Amino acid sequence: MRIDKNQINTINNRALPDHRESFEYLSNKLTTKGLDPDQLIQKIQDFQIAIPSWALGTGGTRFGRFPGGGEPRSLEEKIDDVGLIHALNAGSGAISLHIPWDIPGDIEAVKAHAASHNLLFDAVNSNTFQDQPDQELSYKFGSLCHTDAKVRQQAVDHNLEVIKYGDQLGSKALTVWLADGSSFPGQMNFRKALQNTLDSLKAIYQGLPSDWKMFVEYKPYEPNFYHTVIQDWGTSHLLASQLGDRAFTLVDLGHHLPNTNIEQIVATLMMQGKLGGFHFNDSKFGDDDLTAGAMKPYQLFLIFNELVEGMEDKNSKNPPPAWMIDASHNLKDPMEDLLQSVEAIQMAYAQALCVDRVALENAREANDAVLAQEILQNAFRTDLRPLIAEARLQANAALSPVEVYRDLAVRKQLVKERGAKSLATGL
Amino acid sequence: MRIDKNQINTINNRALPDHRESFEYLSNKLTTKGLDPDQLIQKIQDFQIAIPSWALGTGGTRFGRFPGGGEPRSLEEKIDDVGLIHALNAGSGAISLHIPWDIPGDIEAVKAHAASHNLLFDAVNSNTFQDQPDQELSYKFGSLCHTDAKVRQQAVDHNLEVIKYGDQLGSKALTVWLADGSSFPGQMNFRKALQNTLDSLKAIYQGLPSDWKMFVEYKPYEPNFYHTVIQDWGTSHLLASQLGDRAFTLVDLGHHLPNTNIEQIVATLMMQGKLGGFHFNDSKFGDDDLTAGAMKPYQLFLIFNELVEGMEDKNSKNPPPAWMIDASHNLKDPMEDLLQSVEAIQMAYAQALCVDRVALENAREANDAVLAQEILQNAFRTDLRPLIAEARLQANAALSPVEVYRDLAVRKQLVKERGAKSLATGL
Amino acid sequence: MRIDKNQINTINNRALPDHRESFEYLSNKLTTKGLDPDQLIQKIQDFQIAIPSWALGTGGTRFGRFPGGGEPRSLEEKIDDVGLIHALNAGSGAISLHIPWDIPGDIEAVKAHAASHNLLFDAVNSNTFQDQPDQELSYKFGSLCHTDAKVRQQAVDHNLEVIKYGDQLGSKALTVWLADGSSFPGQMNFRKALQNTLDSLKAIYQGLPSDWKMFVEYKPYEPNFYHTVIQDWGTSHLLASQLGDRAFTLVDLGHHLPNTNIEQIVATLMMQGKLGGFHFNDSKFGDDDLTAGAMKPYQLFLIFNELVEGMEDKNSKNPPPAWMIDASHNLKDPMEDLLQSVEAIQMAYAQALCVDRVALENAREANDAVLAQEILQNAFRTDLRPLIAEARLQANAALSPVEVYRDLAVRKQLVKERGAKSLATGL
Amino acid sequence: MRIDKNQINTINNRALPDHRESFEYLSNKLTTKGLDPDQLIQKIQDFQIAIPSWALGTGGTRFGRFPGGGEPRSLEEKIDDVGLIHALNAGSGAISLHIPWDIPGDIEAVKAHAASHNLLFDAVNSNTFQDQPDQELSYKFGSLCHTDAKVRQQAVDHNLEVIKYGDQLGSKALTVWLADGSSFPGQMNFRKALQNTLDSLKAIYQGLPSDWKMFVEYKPYEPNFYHTVIQDWGTSHLLASQLGDRAFTLVDLGHHLPNTNIEQIVATLMMQGKLGGFHFNDSKFGDDDLTAGAMKPYQLFLIFNELVEGMEDKNSKNPPPAWMIDASHNLKDPMEDLLQSVEAIQMAYAQALCVDRVALENAREANDAVLAQEILQNAFRTDLRPLIAEARLQANAALSPVEVYRDLAVRKQLVKERGAKSLATGL
Repeated sequence: MRIDKNQINTINNRALPDHRESFEYLSNKLTTKGLDPDQLIQKIQDFQIAIPSWALGTGGTRFGRFPGGGEPRSLEEKIDDVGLIHALNAGSGAISLHIPWDIPGDIEAVKAHAASHNLLFDAVNSNTFQDQPDQELSYKFGSLCHTDAKVRQQAVDHNLEVIKYGDQLGSKALTVWLADGSSFPGQMNFRKALQNTLDSLKAIYQGLPSDWKMFVEYKPYEPNFYHTVIQDWGTSHLLASQLGDRAFTLVDLGHHLPNTNIEQIVATLMMQGKLGGFHFNDSKFGDDDLTAGAMKPYQLFLIFNELVEGMEDKNSKNPPPAWMIDASHNLKDPMEDLLQSVEAIQMAYAQALCVDRVALENAREANDAVLAQEILQNAFRTDLRPLIAEARLQANAALSPVEVYRDLAVRKQLVKERGAKSLATGL
Repeated sequence: MRIDKNQINTINNRALPDHRESFEYLSNKLTTKGLDPDQLIQKIQDFQIAIPSWALGTGGTRFGRFPGGGEPRSLEEKIDDVGLIHALNAGSGAISLHIPWDIPGDIEAVKAHAASHNLLFDAVNSNTFQDQPDQELSYKFGSLCHTDAKVRQQAVDHNLEVIKYGDQLGSKALTVWLADGSSFPGQMNFRKALQNTLDSLKAIYQGLPSDWKMFVEYKPYEPNFYHTVIQDWGTSHLLASQLGDRAFTLVDLGHHLPNTNIEQIVATLMMQGKLGGFHFNDSKFGDDDLTAGAMKPYQLFLIFNELVEGMEDKNSKNPPPAWMIDASHNLKDPMEDLLQSVEAIQMAYAQALCVDRVALENAREANDAVLAQEILQNAFRTDLRPLIAEARLQANAALSPVEVYRDLAVRKQLVKERGAKSLATGL
Repeated sequence: MRIDKNQINTINNRALPDHRESFEYLSNKLTTKGLDPDQLIQKIQDFQIAIPSWALGTGGTRFGRFPGGGEPRSLEEKIDDVGLIHALNAGSGAISLHIPWDIPGDIEAVKAHAASHNLLFDAVNSNTFQDQPDQELSYKFGSLCHTDAKVRQQAVDHNLEVIKYGDQLGSKALTVWLADGSSFPGQMNFRKALQNTLDSLKAIYQGLPSDWKMFVEYKPYEPNFYHTVIQDWGTSHLLASQLGDRAFTLVDLGHHLPNTNIEQIVATLMMQGKLGGFHFNDSKFGDDDLTAGAMKPYQLFLIFNELVEGMEDKNSKNPPPAWMIDASHNLKDPMEDLLQSVEAIQMAYAQALCVDRVALENAREANDAVLAQEILQNAFRTDLRPLIAEARLQANAALSPVEVYRDLAVRKQLVKERGAKSLATGL
Repeated sequence: MRIDKNQINTINNRALPDHRESFEYLSNKLTTKGLDPDQLIQKIQDFQIAIPSWALGTGGTRFGRFPGGGEPRSLEEKIDDVGLIHALNAGSGAISLHIPWDIPGDIEAVKAHAASHNLLFDAVNSNTFQDQPDQELSYKFGSLCHTDAKVRQQAVDHNLEVIKYGDQLGSKALTVWLADGSSFPGQMNFRKALQNTLDSLKAIYQGLPSDWKMFVEYKPYEPNFYHTVIQDWGTSHLLASQLGDRAFTLVDLGHHLPNTNIEQIVATLMMQGKLGGFHFNDSKFGDDDLTAGAMKPYQLFLIFNELVEGMEDKNSKNPPPAWMIDASHNLKDPMEDLLQSVEAIQMAYAQALCVDRVALENAREANDAVLAQEILQNAFRTDLRPLIAEARLQANAALSPVEVYRDLAVRKQLVKERGAKSLATGL
């Protein structure tokens, strides 16, 4: 199914008077503070967050899954779902594919299908953390780090194949997330595993088209429970530095030990010109993969405060990072979850844009912690929802995406089309 | 397959001279310290650790599974596997069943089969954290805590059915582990959920035979990532207190927040007469379900130090706790993993038995932290492996269980019997 | 010094037009949602947060202190400082004393002095975690839990003395925070320590006036680094239950292990009628004692969401909890820090009051996690600063307390009066 | 006081027959496994662990201190105390000074005094985390990272002065630990703070004698509770890489977030040739600074397993690391604590030396996690205390250092000499 712009308009119109009033009030407030609402709206509209293809189905834990219905059964239907989201929020104009779950058949048809939804192809993702039915060698004990050179070669070849598909579709980056590691003290030689990983990544990097980037993800644990080869940003940065100028670190919000200051990592990476991209989600305990902003919205804002500072720094050597959601929707309707995530991310971005940076730097230079806190919290406490809504409205999208999604009974329609037991590939 | 005692003897004999020497040396050392080796051996032999039926197959994570071969395909084969383990270590004389994965068909035949392996039936476990194919109502949003009374009733009925099966087999306890909780702030009413859980547990408690116990497990997170209804020992203890004298708290080592002092919880529960049982495993990050003693052997010893102190306290009102392993074997052969776990547990128990308790109490009374540490570490640093081996030897089991298991090529034999692709039920 | 209401009015007047506009807009929005702004303002005004006497000086860490100037040198000056804060925010109408740091000399004079600032005396706090110069026996190895009955008696006597002082001043509660515990495995007998603590608390409870409450605080670690006798809410609740109806658990936000769901603890305690009081602060790593709301404002809101739900429940058997800040001001001016804390607490309270509880319960009953999140975040994202400011305005306090504090150069004045090197007693 | 070798011998003689028997048994066992006891003894004797001057007094927490008696009142007495420790364990042949706490007066006299105890001067430590009475500018808001160039210069100058003292005494390394950071979101500009720190370190590095090393320590939090400029090994490594070949990362065991895999960090740093030194201690919650090996002896062993592997790797470009204890003795007699720490470290080192590395690598190559665990635990479970004791015996030190320390009533003697209220400088 596709959502007609008229359907959205009709529902928007109901809330329009109220929105107009709220936006006008906010707009005046922002202008008084020296902010330009039009410019803010433009930045919000330009900020597009890729949707990963696997996030369109119901996720699960090792204890079980409770699938909903109407899940996409093919790459085309996944593109349709992202198209639906993008139609509603005008902020999700890209899809991030996962190989082998999303191997495109007819490349041109797939590209045309995406284009019809105004979608681009973001970074492609390889998978060497699972065994596929037809796979010759197992990744049970690692892939790029494996003790057996044949397994490493198989994993390198897979990544090269992923690049090939991505290249055909117009992607410009490869994201490498590795489950490689060990669960028991003694099981693996830390140094050899890291050296093998570096060598394998070099082989992949060799195959990277000259206008591509490689994103190296890190994670402290899970699915291995003692050691992960790329356990932290330091290790990822070490690898990226040794690989070359087109290799970068990718930050996934859920991939940190308890209490990590993630915003500081973001700042350090941007300072080194090595922040490649971002996986958004939220968590309380580990890699919980919950809706972005559902648990720690202030932390999300603080992270964006660094991102904005880095992006607006004219001397920065960091290229514009790639933005992607990476969450797992175990209990919520995946599309509603994604709509909530994108909105929370946009909110944090907008709040960060509203920080009075000159005043903040002055307070910092004066070591005035009280004032610095006031300045940050002033931005955070400002209710910017009308601004985000206006950005959507001006882009012909929904004032309240979740509300429109529900009013139009999208899920019901999808269940009718695809069945109540359809099952998306992925986690 | 079954292991013949002669096979074990033959392999034991190779290592016997070396063992005799080591044991004699240790035996003298212990005697000098005022310990009675025979008494220690008797206690080690009496200490039987139940094997859960689901631990005999390869486990996995949400990212995938890498099954090994020769996994048990039926309840009978699971009993066979525990029988094999018990034949090798003489310390695993019980099996803990999980319903609905292990519903016995012919009760008498199953009992006779277990008896032929000298196995008892330990606590039975209910499952309301997954949906079964034929299940009417879903547990997606909880079971005993559910907002819908019908779901709660279904979960209560399931527990009563589990009791029924257990009763027929000779079990004397029901273990209730609940995944119930929520993943998002606001999703669930904490108070109603706890009240519903209490009411449901009361209904189950009503159906408990008079010589049974009920064990209420706790866990801070996973599979829910914001709130778990029974999040900690305090909540479990609250419920157990309100249920009655036959309700107890069960401690699973992996079910705690980072840095929790678990041994103190054990001490407090025993002091209240409310420690019902124990699930052994080890972990570094969360509920990693690794081999007991693989990560933090000193912590395991400290826990046993409390258990022994509680069990040897003549004024204690705590009944003897039930012992069970609860681990997930993702990378190791499940039976080798279980053999290592049992050995590590026995070691910690034996070390705790060797603590000079009179000297320890004197040091404590004098607030002599240096001496208290010396006393504990003296016990921990003593190499008690010959004592454990001797306990096995005297029980006609293997001096080195894993070695014998490998020498006899048990797994290879099981693969031949059951196939390389057999898949055990469970996680 | 005292702040004259006219001084506040003068500064308020500058911002009044802007405030009027903001408040009117917000007021309309709230009314549209069915909320009564006047009622909200009344509740905010009724919500008084006690200031602890030790929070008025610069705190420190074990690595050092960097004192500011103008710190209060006596109980009278501490009362003056709380008076200043209360004059500015009209929300800090009580002081919480700490004995022996604040032993009152002339009781009637002290009472009159506090009354002249419109201040009440909140819970009194005992100190058995430090040795005082004239103290006979040391608390190095514990106080109420000590192995030596004489030390326990000394600590009990101290608590009884604290009650005596509090009673004379009009306090109605005793807060007991114990550092008691051990830093090395083996050092202390967990069970004896807990039993001694219970017995000592019973002796103190005996001396409690009939209209008093006793608050039992818990904390997992620091200053002891292996075990704390009252390590968690479960232990505190156990003790409070055994002590009697006037004993309650006190929650300090910084006293939890990483990732603890504190709001759930709050809900459980209120459900049992055992939540006695609250110590507000914020933290990222441990008991960091930072400004309330500076780190995790959403968590603070979620906690208030439970508090409001509990307080508004007509069937609740929980008495109104006592509110107090407990923070340590190492880098900020203590009074500015306290003003920021009170404002953040009021904000979280007001946001929780604005939650649409009927809609929330409906969403919960329907297991609609998406909607439940929307409802909570709607309240959290609403900019309620004008409401808080209006509540202050109507109480003749400052629209912007920190701003007025700075405009009036309060600290400078205090330094002039008290000197640049005055040092408050406390941490 | 000094301990006469005859005093030690006399006490040793009591335990000698028992020791001889134990050592002979162990020696045979080790020889059977292909290990050379003499070589092991030589390595243990060569492994010298520096004692920091500040660890000889009673430490404290922010909540208070409970000083013992007989603490060293001067640099000379600190050297005496290390001399006593070294006389007892023959494993603490160096002292690590802290400036300004230990500014030497008569350099030659101090050197001669240390030489008379057979002590060397290990790395010197600077202090820019506290304000000294005569200090012009405050470090309240940082030192090398400070916004004010004058404060940075003062801190640089201090470090250069520390080098000067160290150079005169024969030290060959400077350890820089910085408390620099912030406690509130917004307070500090992460990037500027890091850049300032780098620039300041460069200025210090310029002043480093050509045969010196610089060790850059990292720590995630405390005394700042939101952000530390050098928060992790990645940041320290980044700085050390940019500084030059003589700059290295220093690992303090207590300076990590919960659950960090420290042994992996050690392996990675050695692989990069950037592990400069080690601060030993143990902890459960944070930087608890407890006796090494008191809490997680298996982790300590796993760390040494990496250290030994790195040190025995002939292709390693990592220079031999510097070893130092860094602990805080709040409850134990500092010297007893240090004796226990050294013993635990030696034990872990010896256990790591006993790992069958060839078999381990074979198991790893075969991904045999069960066997790899057996190999590690075989080494860990072996009771090597007689080997450590023999190493001491052959070096004319005590078989049981703590026992001899107590038998000789060293503390009592020191109290007599120095008084019961003497107070060492330091934390």
